[in-house]
Amino acid sequence: MQRRELPFDIGDERLAAAAWSRIVEPADSVAGSVIGELGPSEALAWLLSDPMTGAPPRLMRRVESWRVRLGTLDIRREMEMARRCGARVVIPGDTDWPAGLADLGAEAPVALWVRGELSGAGRAVALVGARAATRYGEHVAAEFGHAMAERGLAVISGGAYGIDAAAHRGALAAEGAARTVAVLAGGVDRPYPSGNADLQERIARRGAVISEVPPGSMPSKHRFLARNRLIAAMGRATVVIEASYRSGALSTANHASRLLRPVGAVPGAVTSAQSAGCHRLIREGQAVLVSSPDEVAELVTPAGAALPPDPLVAPGLLDGLPEDQARVLDALPVRAAVEVRKVAITAGMAADEVRGALGLLELAGKVRRSGTRWARA
Amino acid sequence: MQRRELPFDIGDERLAAAAWSRIVEPADSVAGSVIGELGPSEALAWLLSDPMTGAPPRLMRRVESWRVRLGTLDIRREMEMARRCGARVVIPGDTDWPAGLADLGAEAPVALWVRGELSGAGRAVALVGARAATRYGEHVAAEFGHAMAERGLAVISGGAYGIDAAAHRGALAAEGAARTVAVLAGGVDRPYPSGNADLQERIARRGAVISEVPPGSMPSKHRFLARNRLIAAMGRATVVIEASYRSGALSTANHASRLLRPVGAVPGAVTSAQSAGCHRLIREGQAVLVSSPDEVAELVTPAGAALPPDPLVAPGLLDGLPEDQARVLDALPVRAAVEVRKVAITAGMAADEVRGALGLLELAGKVRRSGTRWARA
Repeated sequence: MQRRELPFDIGDERLAAAAWSRIVEPADSVAGSVIGELGPSEALAWLLSDPMTGAPPRLMRRVESWRVRLGTLDIRREMEMARRCGARVVIPGDTDWPAGLADLGAEAPVALWVRGELSGAGRAVALVGARAATRYGEHVAAEFGHAMAERGLAVISGGAYGIDAAAHRGALAAEGAARTVAVLAGGVDRPYPSGNADLQERIARRGAVISEVPPGSMPSKHRFLARNRLIAAMGRATVVIEASYRSGALSTANHASRLLRPVGAVPGAVTSAQSAGCHRLIREGQAVLVSSPDEVAELVTPAGAALPPDPLVAPGLLDGLPEDQARVLDALPVRAAVEVRKVAITAGMAADEVRGALGLLELAGKVRRSGTRWARA
Repeated sequence: MQRRELPFDIGDERLAAAAWSRIVEPADSVAGSVIGELGPSEALAWLLSDPMTGAPPRLMRRVESWRVRLGTLDIRREMEMARRCGARVVIPGDTDWPAGLADLGAEAPVALWVRGELSGAGRAVALVGARAATRYGEHVAAEFGHAMAERGLAVISGGAYGIDAAAHRGALAAEGAARTVAVLAGGVDRPYPSGNADLQERIARRGAVISEVPPGSMPSKHRFLARNRLIAAMGRATVVIEASYRSGALSTANHASRLLRPVGAVPGAVTSAQSAGCHRLIREGQAVLVSSPDEVAELVTPAGAALPPDPLVAPGLLDGLPEDQARVLDALPVRAAVEVRKVAITAGMAADEVRGALGLLELAGKVRRSGTRWARA
């Protein structure tokens, strides 16, 4: 395979990230790992040039699917489309990139398409639940959304009917600048569901409507499920307000649990099928029962937040070091001095990398050289 | 002090126990300890003969209060009064003495005054809650009471308005011989509250109305609180159906916890003050959330002995499919038939993968081929 010509500069990290967001499906951890390792530009260069001779067929097929989509992609046109609908691309490293997304690791999105403002959405709580909500559920969602926004917490939800819409509306009704963010499964240019177009317009003006897939993308079932991980990761806690026994909202709770985020669930009448999922979460110990805005706020700022810190513990040898230096220092024997080659093998790093790390460690006074060997200082 | 003459034979254990139930207040662990050690007859003999010279004044005063009451007691007349209202005295050792009461130790009652039949009340569950219940609470109490009785579990409650009455009524409506037992804080001859006189009459005919204080006794505040320990001890589990944040029903839950009995609580709307106590029990980990009769039964027969099945839910289109087939099926339009290449682009998969998945989906009858195109079946 020869290197193809692309109608854009792959050296532009933002364009490259945007292109990746177009050619891979959400939560593709293979793509995520490569992009995380190389950065989006270098990863694109690799995709265009590496014939991958001898790679396992499964992997080949995956990569080939990216190439097929890349072949039909005009990312400049897509950026222009996005601009016309008021959207821009936010990438990791931008000041308004939601910090919580980093916890998704290789499943973090490579870019977000954003209509509105994301800044200030760092202290956020996810309020989620059933589309087919009851009046009770919508009442609680609106009250909690409002109360969280009044406390200065951004309200993250999915922009859908029912609980989502009520939570967003509650937040919009609050005084002050607190944001609400709707995370869509499809493109931000096509309000979904269309009946919530006006609501999403208001959300974009006061907060943000975002998606990891570019404008024009359809919200497929797969994308809905993948979208839920973004909602869970952006909230410091996730609260399920109403959910049937097998509601999609439970997947957001599962994502939050896996991310070690607190999960709350609102109880309701046991005669209401729309509360069965919440009761299940509570019964199974996956969620804490929350019955008031105060109890939701307690999830975000847990009870121990103001407690005195643990007794002082001496910092460890590797604390605060960059990953590569920590690995090199850890690979050095406690007493003996060893060659760079030996360190490289122990640390699982290239000799060049090891030399670079040793140089910095020497400057920091943590290692010392003796001839061609190195030892801990 | 010389031995007084009593108008009954203190060697009759049943009469002696009845006398003790008249002269000490419920849950008096000093009396309970002595009676437990000596038996009611010998304990009475001790009370009548021991001048207790040199005993601590606090203890002297307590014992003196028993002697004062004993001096005015005509226990034979009380037994006759009881007989006239259909009550008799049941004491530990009788076959129908509720076994669970032994767990109360020195706070176990010395005798029970019983209208009706207690036999068969060994496998029992306590259903308790607020007098000022909502229609929702009463509905759940009646349903749970009925379902427990249908399962052959006796329903223990307090005979009061609201949740208690609904739980008793539910049990009475069940087929078969399952009992329901009302544990009163006052004498069984004076239905309390009087508005529940008819209900308590029906309970006495199908089950039992019981009390640890003799006929003629007033239900004082102290006796209400002490009564709750009997309800907790007689149930293998206690379920609070509705309770405000500081409801007396919570004291029954506390007694059950102290007796290491499982406690369940029924959730309700967070907007209902009558569910706040239940939510508190669940949040604080003192109660398990129970939302169905199956889950109540699980408390009584714990540890997975017979786990309730998941509620029946129709499986979704993509449920149970391997990831690749689910993505392919999801990528097929709802009605139109499309080429493999189109599916591959939509699904973000290689054409080979899509073909493989389509083949398996066709075998499963989920898709059909028409020429080179594919559609959902």
